[in-house]
Order: sequence, then C-alpha cells, then structure tokens
Amino acid sequence: MSSRLTAAAINCSLSAKGRASSTDAMLDVLAEHFQAHDVEVAAPIRIAAHQVKWGVSSNEGAGDDWPAIREQILAADILIFGTPIWMGQPSSVAKLVLERMDAFLDETDAAGRMPSYSKVAVAAIVGNEDGAHHVSSQIFQALNDVGWTIPAVAACYWVGEAMRAIDFKDLEHRPRSVTRTAGMVAANASHLARLLRQSPYPG
Amino acid sequence: MSSRLTAAAINCSLSAKGRASSTDAMLDVLAEHFQAHDVEVAAPIRIAAHQVKWGVSSNEGAGDDWPAIREQILAADILIFGTPIWMGQPSSVAKLVLERMDAFLDETDAAGRMPSYSKVAVAAIVGNEDGAHHVSSQIFQALNDVGWTIPAVAACYWVGEAMRAIDFKDLEHRPRSVTRTAGMVAANASHLARLLRQSPYPG
Amino acid sequence: MSSRLTAAAINCSLSAKGRASSTDAMLDVLAEHFQAHDVEVAAPIRIAAHQVKWGVSSNEGAGDDWPAIREQILAADILIFGTPIWMGQPSSVAKLVLERMDAFLDETDAAGRMPSYSKVAVAAIVGNEDGAHHVSSQIFQALNDVGWTIPAVAACYWVGEAMRAIDFKDLEHRPRSVTRTAGMVAANASHLARLLRQSPYPG
Amino acid sequence: MSSRLTAAAINCSLSAKGRASSTDAMLDVLAEHFQAHDVEVAAPIRIAAHQVKWGVSSNEGAGDDWPAIREQILAADILIFGTPIWMGQPSSVAKLVLERMDAFLDETDAAGRMPSYSKVAVAAIVGNEDGAHHVSSQIFQALNDVGWTIPAVAACYWVGEAMRAIDFKDLEHRPRSVTRTAGMVAANASHLARLLRQSPYPG
Repeated sequence: MSSRLTAAAINCSLSAKGRASSTDAMLDVLAEHFQAHDVEVAAPIRIAAHQVKWGVSSNEGAGDDWPAIREQILAADILIFGTPIWMGQPSSVAKLVLERMDAFLDETDAAGRMPSYSKVAVAAIVGNEDGAHHVSSQIFQALNDVGWTIPAVAACYWVGEAMRAIDFKDLEHRPRSVTRTAGMVAANASHLARLLRQSPYPG
Repeated sequence: MSSRLTAAAINCSLSAKGRASSTDAMLDVLAEHFQAHDVEVAAPIRIAAHQVKWGVSSNEGAGDDWPAIREQILAADILIFGTPIWMGQPSSVAKLVLERMDAFLDETDAAGRMPSYSKVAVAAIVGNEDGAHHVSSQIFQALNDVGWTIPAVAACYWVGEAMRAIDFKDLEHRPRSVTRTAGMVAANASHLARLLRQSPYPG
Repeated sequence: MSSRLTAAAINCSLSAKGRASSTDAMLDVLAEHFQAHDVEVAAPIRIAAHQVKWGVSSNEGAGDDWPAIREQILAADILIFGTPIWMGQPSSVAKLVLERMDAFLDETDAAGRMPSYSKVAVAAIVGNEDGAHHVSSQIFQALNDVGWTIPAVAACYWVGEAMRAIDFKDLEHRPRSVTRTAGMVAANASHLARLLRQSPYPG
Repeated sequence: MSSRLTAAAINCSLSAKGRASSTDAMLDVLAEHFQAHDVEVAAPIRIAAHQVKWGVSSNEGAGDDWPAIREQILAADILIFGTPIWMGQPSSVAKLVLERMDAFLDETDAAGRMPSYSKVAVAAIVGNEDGAHHVSSQIFQALNDVGWTIPAVAACYWVGEAMRAIDFKDLEHRPRSVTRTAGMVAANASHLARLLRQSPYPG
C-alpha cells in the first residue's frame, strides 16, 4: 500500500465552465491543504459542464456522462463535494449527483458493502449569505446513507453577512477561519482515509 | 371578480412523461378536492419532460422551456408543487424549479411586490418510506422566500413504512388520512387564494 | 370588528431574562414595523424564564407554565416566533414550544379547525454566522403542520459572516436589509391577518 | 490496548423514566448488535430524567446534571444518539444535548483536538410516521461540527406509514430491515472506533 492517497473533487455550480466560480475557489483552498497532507487532488469535475441525466441508477443510457464521473469518484480515496448555496439549500446539481449515488444501495459486494464503503467524504460550501450548515446536513445525511464515512469536522465553508451579495472568489483576503478549517478538514480526512485504506470495513 | 380560481400543478419527478408516477397520483387526489372547491386545476406540468435549464434567472436563453412554464404558474392563483422524495429530500428537479424562482426577488413591481405575491402554494409529496415533513420544510421555506403565501395545513403527503418500497400509485386503497388531508389543503388554499385575489398585498 | 390587530412575540433564547439578547433586539425591530401597521405588539415572552415542561400536550400538569403562554399566543392574531440559531439550527427552546403546539392537532372545533387556524406566524431569527434559512424552514414547516398560515416573506433575520462571533445586538448600525425585510414582513403579515380575521377559514 | 470498546447511549425522549419508550426499544436493538461486535454498551441515559440545563457551556452551574453525563459520553468510544421524532424533527431534548456539546469547540487540546475527536457517533431514531432522514441530517451535521466521526451507514431508524400512530415498541415483529440496518451500523461503527482508538487523529 505504498501509493499516495487520492481525492476526487466535484463542483456542483449551476453554471458550466465558462464563468468563474466561488465553489472552485473553495475547492482550491481545500486542495492546497490536502496536498500538504500528501494527498493527490484531481482537478474539480464541473458537473454542469457534463450531461448527467436525472435518475437513480448508475447508468441512464446513451449520452449519460455519469458512468465516467462515477468511476473517477470511486477510484479516489476521498470525495470533496463542492456546492454553492442557493436559497439556503444545496444546488439542484448537488442533489442530482446525490440521487445518482442512490444506486449504491443495490451495488453491494459479497460482504454487503456499497462501492463507497471505506471512502471518506468532505464538503466545500460557499454562498453569499447563509445556509452552509444546512447544506452540510443535507450532503452528509445523503452521502452517509449510501455508504460514505464522514471524518471529524468535515465541512469547509464561507458565507457573507445576511442579505449581502459578496462572492467568496472576490474577497480581498482569505479569511483566517477558512484557512484554519480547511487545515482541519484535510488533516482529519486524510488520516481517516489512510486508516480505512489499510483496514477497510469488513462488511 | 366573477371568474373561477385557477391552480397550476407541477410534477418534479425525475422521469419524463412515459412512466407512471406516484406524484401524479397524489396530484390527482388534490385536483379532485380543489375542483370540489370550484378551483380549475390545469393538467400537471411534468418538469423533466421539458428543457428547463439550470440557473437563477427567468430566462436562460435559447432552448429554455422555463419562461413558458413560469408564465403558466404565474397565471394561476394557486401553485400545487408536486415532488417525489429521494434520499429523504426533495428531488433535484424540485430544486431546479425553486432556483429558477429565485429571480422573483429582482422582479418586483412599483410597490415592491414579487410576481408570486398574493398567490398561495401547497405541496403534494410522495415517497416510499420517509421524508415528507422535511420536503415540505424545504419547499415552504424556498417558496416563501420568493413571495408565496402558505395556507394553513398546506402539505398533502404519503410515505410508507421505513425501508420499504411500496409506491403510492400501487396502493389498493387510498388511505383515509390522505383523503382527509387533501380536503383540508384544498379548503384552506382555495379560501386564502380567494381572499388574496380580492385583496392583494398592498406591498 | 373595529379593534386593532394584536401580535404575541416569543423569544426562544437559551437564557432567562437577565442577559441581553440579540433575539430581543430583532423582535424590537419587528415590533416597530408592526406598530407602524397599527398592530399592537405585546412584550416578548422569554420562554426560558418560565417553566415550560417537555411534552406534546397543552397541559403537562402542576407547575407547567405553558397553558398561560399558550393562551397569550392564541389570543393574538399574529405570532412573532423569535429564536436564536445554535449549530445552524433552531434553539432547543424553540423546538420545545413547537412540540407543545403539536397538541393543536387534537384540539379542533366542530368544523375541524385547530386553534391556530386563521392566525398568521412570522419568524425573527438571529445568529452569529449561519443558519437563518434552515431555521425558518423548520419553524414554518412545524407551525404550518399545526395550523398556522405563513404570509409572503415571513422571515426577518440577521447572521454575520461565516465563523465570526459578532452579535446582532452589538452592531453599530442596523443593516438596511434588515429594516427593509422587517417592513415587508410586517406589511404582509398584518394584511393577511386582517383578511383572515374578517374571513376565517371555514374549515 | 487490550480493553473492550465501549459505547454510551442516550435517549432523548420527551418523557422521564416512567413511560415505556420506543427510543429505548430501538436502542435495545442496537445494543444487541454492538454486543455481538464485542462492544460493551452502557444502559441508556434518559436525558429528560435528569436536570440538564439550557446553555452552550459544559457546566451551567449548581444543579446541572450535564457535567456527569458529558463525562460518561466522553469516556466511551462510541456514542449511540437515540431520539424520537416530533413534527418530523429531532426532539427538543436532542437539541438540548447537541447545544451542550457546542462547548467542545473551545475545549481543544494542544493539538487542536476537541474532546470528541477519534470517537464515532451513530443515530437511533424512531417515530410514528415520518422524519428519520431529516433527524439524522440534523444530528450528524451538529455532531460532526463538534468533532464526532460518522461511520458508513450510521443511522438505524423506524417510522410507520404516513399519518398513522403505531409505535415501534408495539410492533409484533421486529422488521427485518431494522435488524439488517442495525447489523450494518454496529459492524461499521465498531470497526471505525477500533481504528481510531489505535490511531487517533493527530490534530
């Protein structure tokens, strides 16, 4: 087991690649910290730039980009789930991704383990003003239902003051609290992923 | 003000029109009860059968079916928001619709009123096993943020016993509790919609 | 029906009366605006300063202060539900109050109407950093389940920037967004309460 | 590290010890399965039978029973968090317990680790009809914020059909899905707790 830990990152922004994204900015912060813990972090997958079909199976047929994304996610030890906040809630794109993972429930191995078992997931959440805790509650519950493990302090987030419209990507300075939290998330997630890689759940 | 009240219904199922839908079955129950209160209920709009683009504006450009759906919804006095439950949460399609309504915040009239003001919204929710209260909390909060009024007892729902897989559309008998609740939802919503049509919020 | 509309206000802070409360500060903002709409607003009831027992009935026996509070709440046309945010969620005291209202489900009149019918509820929410939308989702869903009507734009809230610890009561200036929202909440709630007082739900 | 793993269990029912509790029945199911994985499970602590004061510190002064309960919880490797569902949400007593754990944020050791670090938490949830997924989302988010680790498939729950009033404790047969889920929760939690006991988060 000499190889480095790997992390896949997804960006559940509502927009395709063209526009700059605060979610990408937050994913960058986490990537820096994960790299400092010797984790190889892949470039974020911008879900909205692909054709991910609605559904709850792992393959919704011709033209569905989910099977390839699913494979990239499951090839890594750690999932960094990035989403913006809209209306105080996770984005519809985030929900779409979670629904596609519902299929894991029926994809258990002989020991009853879903493909997500022994992998850890963390959240990267950004919004203008409110909703980060709720978004992490929705992501953690759904991911945990379908087999992911949630390490201690697994959410790194930023929101501005209520009813304002400042974007994380436009902040002049990175808030120290974000830096500190990103460090905790990366340290805990990489430690736990390492343990679970060495000693997977027996099922 | 002699014309009848009208209701628009949306079905946020993940699948397009082909497959039978428990959400449609629940929308049918509510339609019956609304008709008994002299409300004209349009056929449900199956969102997934249209091209509704991701975004938070009212028109996301060429090929976006939302502007036409938006018009149908806003032409009615009442919105019946139908969604299945996936992973204990509203469907991604439901979230997509809510996000598109985020634009209402910037579409106020001279009196500061969003296009949804003086209209009422209710929820029709179905799932195999769990999540109806949470789904109504998500729908009501988001709809209320963007101007909808929520009448007393505004959610009609059905879910089966935990971790089972029975569909509402396959039940042999309509549960009496669903019939009773649908009656309350329709009675309250139509009463309130009538009051607000006669006396809209002044802004 | 010549008498003025009335509003009851509750403060679900975790602390009893001694300490200054940001929730009280937000309730004050709303009270000003309600008074401008000719609504008589009672002094906030600080729940934690009373002995409200745990339970889901309207009277949990000797020493239970809920029956008197319940009466004050139900004597008014409008409920202003004030709560701080803890861990991104409504306070345990807020939950306690909602649970006591669960009894309304069994307290219907001959027309099937709960004691909360034809009354409107709004939320006053404050926190250091995050959670207002989620708190309103929890309050609105639970209150609506037990018969309250939610007027358009029914939540007035403030939270500071992520992971900071500034209190609303210590802000040097009242944010304009809070003033504007309080104005909308008070205008809409008083309009709707007036309509429902004149024309209650028939049940 | 030869000693057995231990688990603390809490019951956040609204009632004190006298009445039979469905939450206790679910905690019993989990205890059986944890014991099969060689975990010593303490008798459930019925929170409502103690004087746990409202607050967000670890000691709210004379007459506060939380410090002793906190010690029992932190002495164990695993926390089994049991709560009933009321109005589709966790009980006010569950919220009270979570709020008391908010103090962990300020109780870090020299390596920045909260007292809950390297301990795992699972949920035992029961209700008449709906809300289990939401309750787990609220518990997992709050517990994770204050340092707990959530193993794969960490919630064991039961709810009945919508708008019914059957209690878990009164079921004639234990549902097989509950037995199966309890087995998964216990297997995963004990495996992860063992790993984290041997190799705690370095901070």
